Amino acid sequence: MKLNQLGEFGLIDRIRQQAGSGSGVVRGIGDDAAVLEVGAGEQLLTSTDLLIETCHFDFTWTRPEDLGHKAIAVNLSDIAAMGGTPRYLYLGLACPGDTEVDRIEGFLAGALRQTEAHGATLVGGDTCRSPGPWVIAVTVEGVVPQGEAVGRDGARPGDVVLVSGTLGDSALAFTMLQKGQRPSAFLAGRHHRPEARVELGRALAASGRVTAMIDVSDGLAADLGHILRASGTAGLLDLSSLPTSEDFRQSLQDNPGMADLALNGGEDYELLFTAADCDVPLLRKQAARVGLPVTVVGEIRVGAPHLLLRDGHGRETPCDLRGFDHFADSTEPADKT
Amino acid sequence: MKLNQLGEFGLIDRIRQQAGSGSGVVRGIGDDAAVLEVGAGEQLLTSTDLLIETCHFDFTWTRPEDLGHKAIAVNLSDIAAMGGTPRYLYLGLACPGDTEVDRIEGFLAGALRQTEAHGATLVGGDTCRSPGPWVIAVTVEGVVPQGEAVGRDGARPGDVVLVSGTLGDSALAFTMLQKGQRPSAFLAGRHHRPEARVELGRALAASGRVTAMIDVSDGLAADLGHILRASGTAGLLDLSSLPTSEDFRQSLQDNPGMADLALNGGEDYELLFTAADCDVPLLRKQAARVGLPVTVVGEIRVGAPHLLLRDGHGRETPCDLRGFDHFADSTEPADKT
Repeated sequence: MKLNQLGEFGLIDRIRQQAGSGSGVVRGIGDDAAVLEVGAGEQLLTSTDLLIETCHFDFTWTRPEDLGHKAIAVNLSDIAAMGGTPRYLYLGLACPGDTEVDRIEGFLAGALRQTEAHGATLVGGDTCRSPGPWVIAVTVEGVVPQGEAVGRDGARPGDVVLVSGTLGDSALAFTMLQKGQRPSAFLAGRHHRPEARVELGRALAASGRVTAMIDVSDGLAADLGHILRASGTAGLLDLSSLPTSEDFRQSLQDNPGMADLALNGGEDYELLFTAADCDVPLLRKQAARVGLPVTVVGEIRVGAPHLLLRDGHGRETPCDLRGFDHFADSTEPADKT
Repeated sequence: MKLNQLGEFGLIDRIRQQAGSGSGVVRGIGDDAAVLEVGAGEQLLTSTDLLIETCHFDFTWTRPEDLGHKAIAVNLSDIAAMGGTPRYLYLGLACPGDTEVDRIEGFLAGALRQTEAHGATLVGGDTCRSPGPWVIAVTVEGVVPQGEAVGRDGARPGDVVLVSGTLGDSALAFTMLQKGQRPSAFLAGRHHRPEARVELGRALAASGRVTAMIDVSDGLAADLGHILRASGTAGLLDLSSLPTSEDFRQSLQDNPGMADLALNGGEDYELLFTAADCDVPLLRKQAARVGLPVTVVGEIRVGAPHLLLRDGHGRETPCDLRGFDHFADSTEPADKT
């Protein structure tokens, strides 16, 4: 069945039936606005993402279920990066009228499973016809105990820079897919079904020891750049310490020259954060409790915002801080969130 | 200057500089998520809209400033329809790389003016390149005192149906624009720069006398249909009582057969609500205080959800309740929010 046969209200009914309910939801899908509770002593966290076909994703190598998962996960990751707990999700969806309803159902199934996996609820959205590409607009609301949100602007000279998990897996999988190669199941999973580090972010924020935090979406160097600019400090990354996976290192043998993806690849959705050196053991313990390694990858220094890269020989060279620009003509990729 | 020369971060900087700050905003634009206060005793209201060029708007007859105004106003109208106060706005914007920055600046100016006019603050969003049409995703968060939100589902048999302001102005202006005619300044303003009835919605909700409420976006009949379905009741509209403007009636002389637009035109952004007959004088007084007339246009009856239309001779005929379907092939308009 095509979307224009199901109709807008048919689609909304299907979404509503599957969306379920959750605590704090006074009114969900089906009114002019959702009505929600935010507890006393809690602050509201809100983030929104716009994903457009051909710019952010390509159905050639993306299953609808995975797209649904990822659209939600990357949004949840923003709440994780503030140290919050995701609660309420909104899904705006525009597709061409001749879209197969099966594809939309697959997308919704992936989106709803990921929403529920983090204890959140889909409570609203908007649907309309697109004259061309799929358009996905996701908004997430989360909560954080009063005063515990961790911004990008608190890094202090002397802090160390830490990152969770491994880097470069997603970008390497994407590069291989573009080349027609088949990434390992692990690498493909890291690209198609990233996991927002919600539990880790909450634990780190609750510890009160993290000075700045961001999720790695643009790439380690670019996202550390966001912290440096917001904090008004300089920073250094030690290239020999970047954590990579066994699959990443193995796949590099067939893809030489891709080691750079651990630094600049992006879409890792790991947490990048800063803290005093003396707090590292405690933070490591918090991370171990949620099953994630964290690695010290650099340090914060006194100075105007700039980033240095230290190679295996101890040489320090400056790194461009600009990061990925969605509007720049030269570097347009086909899969960047 | 073109957008791809300004760059993504250049655009975000411009937006941030203009966005200002507001009460309750702990962190606005520039972090992974906005951090916000929701007062004790308040509930959160959230609504989101997706607008796509050629489907929802057309630059042929729409100034960028007006588009910015309208994108925000229609979203604020959803908060008004719940009886809430808008607080925080999020703007997702995707344009082609060769878009003139002037056009984007105009759009932003209109959006920010409308946001500020209602005491709200732009606190986040997302920007990216579109492969074709402009895509605008607006999310609004508002607050309402605990328990005062008015849904669509509370209409009771015996209630009367009321509507604020006048109907059909926007749809008539749009029809005239499509035909190459020039609507009066009043009609054009009603189409391009609708006013969300925020003050009225708040006053009506605070009175505690309104049983159901919605904003008229799909058209009076379709939106009353939403109330009837949600409330599980039947309803009747008295066609001879629909409030229209002087300009609407005058323009009908050159556009015979368009009187129907007061019933089905849509995009009025007036408030449609139900209440006990005995409460009408009080509600009228509340509305007069914010400078708006309200008119009794029908009644709620016992019965499965269906809508009757009463003509000037007292004859009652059933009306199709389906309303506008964005995915249907036959009735696709070029300007429907």
